[in-house]
Amino acid sequence: MSNKIPTLENLIDKFASLPGVGRKTAARLAYWILSLPKDEARQFADAIVEAHNSVHQCPLCHNLTDAERCGICGSEKRNKRLICVVESPRDVIAFEKTREYKGVYHVIHGLISPMDGIGPEHLHIKDLISRAADAEEVIMATNPTVEGESTAIYISKLIKPLGVKVTRLAYGMPVGGNLEYADEVTLHRALEGRNEI
Amino acid sequence: MSNKIPTLENLIDKFASLPGVGRKTAARLAYWILSLPKDEARQFADAIVEAHNSVHQCPLCHNLTDAERCGICGSEKRNKRLICVVESPRDVIAFEKTREYKGVYHVIHGLISPMDGIGPEHLHIKDLISRAADAEEVIMATNPTVEGESTAIYISKLIKPLGVKVTRLAYGMPVGGNLEYADEVTLHRALEGRNEI
Repeated sequence: MSNKIPTLENLIDKFASLPGVGRKTAARLAYWILSLPKDEARQFADAIVEAHNSVHQCPLCHNLTDAERCGICGSEKRNKRLICVVESPRDVIAFEKTREYKGVYHVIHGLISPMDGIGPEHLHIKDLISRAADAEEVIMATNPTVEGESTAIYISKLIKPLGVKVTRLAYGMPVGGNLEYADEVTLHRALEGRNEI
Repeated sequence: MSNKIPTLENLIDKFASLPGVGRKTAARLAYWILSLPKDEARQFADAIVEAHNSVHQCPLCHNLTDAERCGICGSEKRNKRLICVVESPRDVIAFEKTREYKGVYHVIHGLISPMDGIGPEHLHIKDLISRAADAEEVIMATNPTVEGESTAIYISKLIKPLGVKVTRLAYGMPVGGNLEYADEVTLHRALEGRNEI
């Protein structure tokens, strides 16, 4: 069509490359950007560049930070001998929201997935092992999916020989959940893990 | 929390300001941007600025363009005396995809909505009236919603006195639709508008 606008098509392509954003949504977002005042559109663009320039991985736990070390690794209040292993920085935020966990984290940035060609060497597992050597306990907090499970088992097999306690998050009914709609595996795990009251 | 990163929070805020994007999705998109190579993130930012700088409204029909006039108003193949009135530039794209329409468009950029404080004076209706004076037919192609209907009626009342034919898109069953799931109003309109075969 003669009435396509290259810069607009380019912006739609960019939005469509975002995870979970289809072509129609991308077009809606691009048109919305065009409807903004010029300085607000500029601020949006600047936010991308600034975040990308200032944020990097913490050299210890690989969580994201804009400082030399992340706030959690740098805090004296945190128990450095309790390490929670998670898939992504977003999981760290989820745990921090509970305000209950007082240990540190290790973000491996992905899960082992042979189907997608992701092996242990692509993840931050090597330096987790050296950190774990000084730890009391390592909590495997990957998602309860096939990849999450197998990654947790792979890592725990490397850490256990060091004489370190390795634990896994509890399975069971989500709080506020409905027994009627729970799947069989979750219900089975909830029964297995029952506690005395 | 001490481990919040201001530039990252700012980027999440920006994504969350997009229409239909909630806080969790915004965080997912922001983290995804951070996982990109530096030059790709820069290209994303540039796409926003470049699109915003190069795209503006066509002075005739208010469709978006990067040229002096939009490709449709500038085309000699288009019937300038047939004007299709739509709410947004995205509607123009939808009509162009049919490859059937050979007239021109007029984008009013919104709908009359007293609830949201949008009156006729906020839309490109004034210059539509002056364009319509030379037209043979004006097709009201606003969405079949309450605001779309009332805007179409408002505009048609201004144009009809000029002696110009004003038409409205046909109502009826969508192609591939299911009678069982059609709402009563649509079904009623489909009956009303029945054609001999």
